[in-house]
Amino acid sequence: MNNVSQQEYTEKLAIKKRLHAYYAKETVKNGLKSLSKIMSYLPVEYQGLHLRRNILFSHLDIEPIIACLAKGEKFAVVSGLNPSSSLHLGNKVLFDYLLELQKLGAEIYIPITNDETLADGKAKSLEEARKRAYEDIIPSIIAFGFDPEKTHIFVDTDYPKIYQLAVQLGTNISLPILQTVFGKDSLKNAEQIFYRGGVQLAQILLPQLPEFGGIKHTLIPVGIDQHPYILLARDIAKQQKLIPPSEAVIKFAPSLKNPEEKMSGSKPETAIYLSDTPEIIQQKINKAFTGAVSSLDAHRELGAVPEACSVFALLYYHHPDDKYVSEIYRKYKSGELTASELKEITSKFIVQLVEKHQKEKQKAYSKIKEFLLTEQKGVI
Amino acid sequence: MNNVSQQEYTEKLAIKKRLHAYYAKETVKNGLKSLSKIMSYLPVEYQGLHLRRNILFSHLDIEPIIACLAKGEKFAVVSGLNPSSSLHLGNKVLFDYLLELQKLGAEIYIPITNDETLADGKAKSLEEARKRAYEDIIPSIIAFGFDPEKTHIFVDTDYPKIYQLAVQLGTNISLPILQTVFGKDSLKNAEQIFYRGGVQLAQILLPQLPEFGGIKHTLIPVGIDQHPYILLARDIAKQQKLIPPSEAVIKFAPSLKNPEEKMSGSKPETAIYLSDTPEIIQQKINKAFTGAVSSLDAHRELGAVPEACSVFALLYYHHPDDKYVSEIYRKYKSGELTASELKEITSKFIVQLVEKHQKEKQKAYSKIKEFLLTEQKGVI
Repeated sequence: MNNVSQQEYTEKLAIKKRLHAYYAKETVKNGLKSLSKIMSYLPVEYQGLHLRRNILFSHLDIEPIIACLAKGEKFAVVSGLNPSSSLHLGNKVLFDYLLELQKLGAEIYIPITNDETLADGKAKSLEEARKRAYEDIIPSIIAFGFDPEKTHIFVDTDYPKIYQLAVQLGTNISLPILQTVFGKDSLKNAEQIFYRGGVQLAQILLPQLPEFGGIKHTLIPVGIDQHPYILLARDIAKQQKLIPPSEAVIKFAPSLKNPEEKMSGSKPETAIYLSDTPEIIQQKINKAFTGAVSSLDAHRELGAVPEACSVFALLYYHHPDDKYVSEIYRKYKSGELTASELKEITSKFIVQLVEKHQKEKQKAYSKIKEFLLTEQKGVI
Repeated sequence: MNNVSQQEYTEKLAIKKRLHAYYAKETVKNGLKSLSKIMSYLPVEYQGLHLRRNILFSHLDIEPIIACLAKGEKFAVVSGLNPSSSLHLGNKVLFDYLLELQKLGAEIYIPITNDETLADGKAKSLEEARKRAYEDIIPSIIAFGFDPEKTHIFVDTDYPKIYQLAVQLGTNISLPILQTVFGKDSLKNAEQIFYRGGVQLAQILLPQLPEFGGIKHTLIPVGIDQHPYILLARDIAKQQKLIPPSEAVIKFAPSLKNPEEKMSGSKPETAIYLSDTPEIIQQKINKAFTGAVSSLDAHRELGAVPEACSVFALLYYHHPDDKYVSEIYRKYKSGELTASELKEITSKFIVQLVEKHQKEKQKAYSKIKEFLLTEQKGVI
């Protein structure tokens, strides 16, 4: 084995360490608590895939949600989706988690934030993002298998109630507080300020309005970068005599190109879209960053670093069978399974998954209305 | 005649001078042009009461509107109303002007800004201001005699299109620009920023959307304190390839207590509401500030200063007959007419006017729908 291979391997190990350190540091820095501690004393039926695999890594005040589960009490989950691109596998991780929560009894709210898309310059017009919402994203969400009775989807600018609530909350959010929480860079124009200081808070607190049954526990699954919203929302909730929302922080799904960055809809080379063809999926996976060294001989000797592998991550985040995933992990780590074998296995699995999704999506178009929150359901 | 009377008279003359100087100075300071210059070459049919009496005192770029009148071309007028209190005679001045413009062919848009009421802390909830809009203010506006075919009223938070447009415009309005135009004091919370940097601009530019016939000349009648909005709206209009709105600046109707302040709905002692009873109207006029000295003998000798008289202003702003108003002016100024006689005449006139309005208002409740702008009329 030459020095080049050894160096490659060392670099991949370093990625694994940095990723681990990153999440550990973020947990402490933001005053969050590790979820693995809670995991150990949870009944098996609550130990979903994301919890078992440590994809959900930390939380703030999640205990009341667990109590709701134990007592069979209603609770809400809110998870917004920015319609800046077609859905990709990174989005799917979150929706899988929402589905699990729904099976445990949660009422799910999914705001499609076409205003956010515009505010952040990721669409030329509201209408562009709005069109994508109805023609592509909402059917794709429905295709995951949500229950229309317990899932409420709305496009922000088509749902006046969210703006009415945003106006009401926005009068209580001072500019200096916003600047402290978010920094000035994401508060450059009037719409960004209103989105972050009004609309997003309204989304989080909407389920506690009287027309949705009044105050209740709410869980907000977020990426770590969204943590400031939760802190602000908790303050405002207290001020409005509502229950401060609980937070579950989910790891980002890694970019195909770099496990230390996230899969992003605006960077097609980093993501597999749920609308990609089998050929494109295979191509993308073939070009993806792996946890294995380049030399096959060195791989057999050193093994791979699955934690630093964007291909293995696809199985780890999406394959439902724990035993199967562990077996692949073991073989890949030991060098028994090569990177190209892993790519083949993973391509086959992801192609199947995406093809199934696309079939379900076709059936979903006729169901959109069942999921949409309208003024009739919840008018002032 | 004693020194006290002479001093009183001198003080009232000083008020007249200060008022004159105030409007002259504001015109120059804000780069506006005097309307009296234009008046002289306008056809008689365009010389409405507000122009003849110099209640409209200055303008910015009003020439295109006059050209529209001459050519019989369509133009729009937008005039928002903050539903922070019942309508009073100060509001009536503006609505009288809108009515005149409508008779000359203008299409009138009247946003009822319940979001502004809340943003500025003049209502406890959106719903409070919204309720007042439908139960009190809109019927009162209709009672002035607007034509439902050419008048479009909407309550901001009930009309999603205005928020959709506000979101779109708000992404183009940077915080530093807003702070320069309005000062930091009226931009304290997220909603104030979005109202001033999005919603109000959307109101002004709404008539130029394709569903309202596309780009067109628009006139915005404002109080001088609203001039900054127009400057900002003109910039944004250019940026959006719309026609910059024209501005007509109208003098404030004086407070009953002080001709140098304005009649304000939030200070009941300064205003006569269109819902006041005859007794209250008489009481308020009896207690009002006048342009006459206290001693009757001195009044006969010195005469009054009608320009510094909150009672005479009621006739001047509201009585339709120029000759009659001139005659009262002459007699009052010369001392022939006393302040108490003026109060009696004015009370009688205003009581009649308000009673007529209240009768018309009762009939207006059934017509509200004909005036409301709804999504069906103008959806994206």
